[in-house]
Amino acid sequence: MKKIGFIGLGIMGKPMAKNLLKAGYPMVAYDVRPEPLAEVVSAGAAAGHSARDVASRSEVIITMLPDSPDVEAAALGSGGIIEGANPGSILVDMSSIAPRVSREISARLAGKGVAMLDAPVSGGEPKAIEGTLAIMVGGPQEAFDQVKDLLGVMGASVLRVGEIGSGNTAKLANQIIVALNIAAVSEALVLATKAGVNPEAVFQAIRGGLAGSTVLEAKVPMMLAGNFKPGFRIELHIKDLVNALKTATELDVPIPLAGRVLEIMQALREEGRARDDHSGIVQFYEKLAKVEVRR
Amino acid sequence: MKKIGFIGLGIMGKPMAKNLLKAGYPMVAYDVRPEPLAEVVSAGAAAGHSARDVASRSEVIITMLPDSPDVEAAALGSGGIIEGANPGSILVDMSSIAPRVSREISARLAGKGVAMLDAPVSGGEPKAIEGTLAIMVGGPQEAFDQVKDLLGVMGASVLRVGEIGSGNTAKLANQIIVALNIAAVSEALVLATKAGVNPEAVFQAIRGGLAGSTVLEAKVPMMLAGNFKPGFRIELHIKDLVNALKTATELDVPIPLAGRVLEIMQALREEGRARDDHSGIVQFYEKLAKVEVRR
Repeated sequence: MKKIGFIGLGIMGKPMAKNLLKAGYPMVAYDVRPEPLAEVVSAGAAAGHSARDVASRSEVIITMLPDSPDVEAAALGSGGIIEGANPGSILVDMSSIAPRVSREISARLAGKGVAMLDAPVSGGEPKAIEGTLAIMVGGPQEAFDQVKDLLGVMGASVLRVGEIGSGNTAKLANQIIVALNIAAVSEALVLATKAGVNPEAVFQAIRGGLAGSTVLEAKVPMMLAGNFKPGFRIELHIKDLVNALKTATELDVPIPLAGRVLEIMQALREEGRARDDHSGIVQFYEKLAKVEVRR
Repeated sequence: MKKIGFIGLGIMGKPMAKNLLKAGYPMVAYDVRPEPLAEVVSAGAAAGHSARDVASRSEVIITMLPDSPDVEAAALGSGGIIEGANPGSILVDMSSIAPRVSREISARLAGKGVAMLDAPVSGGEPKAIEGTLAIMVGGPQEAFDQVKDLLGVMGASVLRVGEIGSGNTAKLANQIIVALNIAAVSEALVLATKAGVNPEAVFQAIRGGLAGSTVLEAKVPMMLAGNFKPGFRIELHIKDLVNALKTATELDVPIPLAGRVLEIMQALREEGRARDDHSGIVQFYEKLAKVEVRR
């Protein structure tokens, strides 16, 4: 079993690291915060002292960090992976970041003989705990073949979609669809509610048809309960849509609806809703329409 | 079995009428065009001469017409249902129209002792032929109870969602969600394609997660095939979204994303795409991004 270095023990990274430990992988772990590091160490990992230290003691380095600048710093910064990584090792960045940054880091690491995969995940904390994430991978086939089994410990679906950056591109596509499907349900149900129709009856009437979706099934019950406990926080979805817009702008691709739903999320952040679940998008419409979908 | 009058034998109405005939319901049918009327007559219906004539010979009058003005004319116009309908009969309008118009027609017919239900459908021609439509019904419970079995001949799901107009409100909600889910998939896959990632691989990587939807399963294969044969035509979806925006404006409910996708459909209509399937929304993005999702 390959020696794993795990950097980033947040809401997602911590249960992912624990699942690898449970599966028997030897691990050096690191986080800037001592608490989650101590927890993963007590689950069987050795404690790393820096990203460089972790990289020097591992064959496969996994990073699970908030956004592009964090991954850049951990990979290329002072005391970073690039200073410690052994030639032949593989960096698997499972953070959700801008595809361009994945490509840039990969190019820099290649000079050190280190391969890189971008492998963002979908599914949130519950699926991280269960080990049933969807993992979308970009990067060299050869590196993918070496870590596929290991990724299978964390994910129910592990699919290589193309070269480096492709995993994050697929993730951006995923996040565009999810955000817009939530906004679609919000517009539809707030309109129906203001028209005097029971939103739950509408939900029942349409779920079996072409309007059916995983978002409808997962998020309408939250909207009807007025329960916006995350789940997946609006502030994180903002980060992903900002990356989607940056990427779309670089590529000269119009994504006007994704741009509009980003504005809606930013307006909700301004009202103190940044840490609500993204199903809380419905609150933007409820407030303006002066009506509540809630039962 | 109740005597049915069926008015409007288009792509949807004709197979719906035939299914009722197959189930043994006696029927008087009418359409302004002689060809579909002849076809339904040869399937066992009597030929009506006008909406008034049909109404005078029926207990349950079904209308399946393009838009609000058509239903208004058939119901309330010269030679219309209101002039012939017997007290105690029921008008079931299965067209997709503005909820306000349903309420107005219902109020006028009430003066003649005629009850009305609005009962728009979802599922398109294939499900009309199979008799497996989703039927969303608004109107009095008592009238609903009298026609529920008869509607069950045409639909797999027949749900009363509220008072008159509620069926069309639920249908507008359905159409908002469907249009936006298609646009969401379009933005996501055009972006991924322009970024050099195989859109089919993205589809496979995300379909099992929160981005999954009936639209994704039904429409992505059409986009990948570049096949926009309807299905459900853009021009009809424009009609529904115009009704949604009118309703939203009357109720002071913001539906900015639905408004934006309507503009996209209108731009496609301008380019001669009005009769494409609504999955053809992807072409708006493909043209501006100068890339094709097609395999």
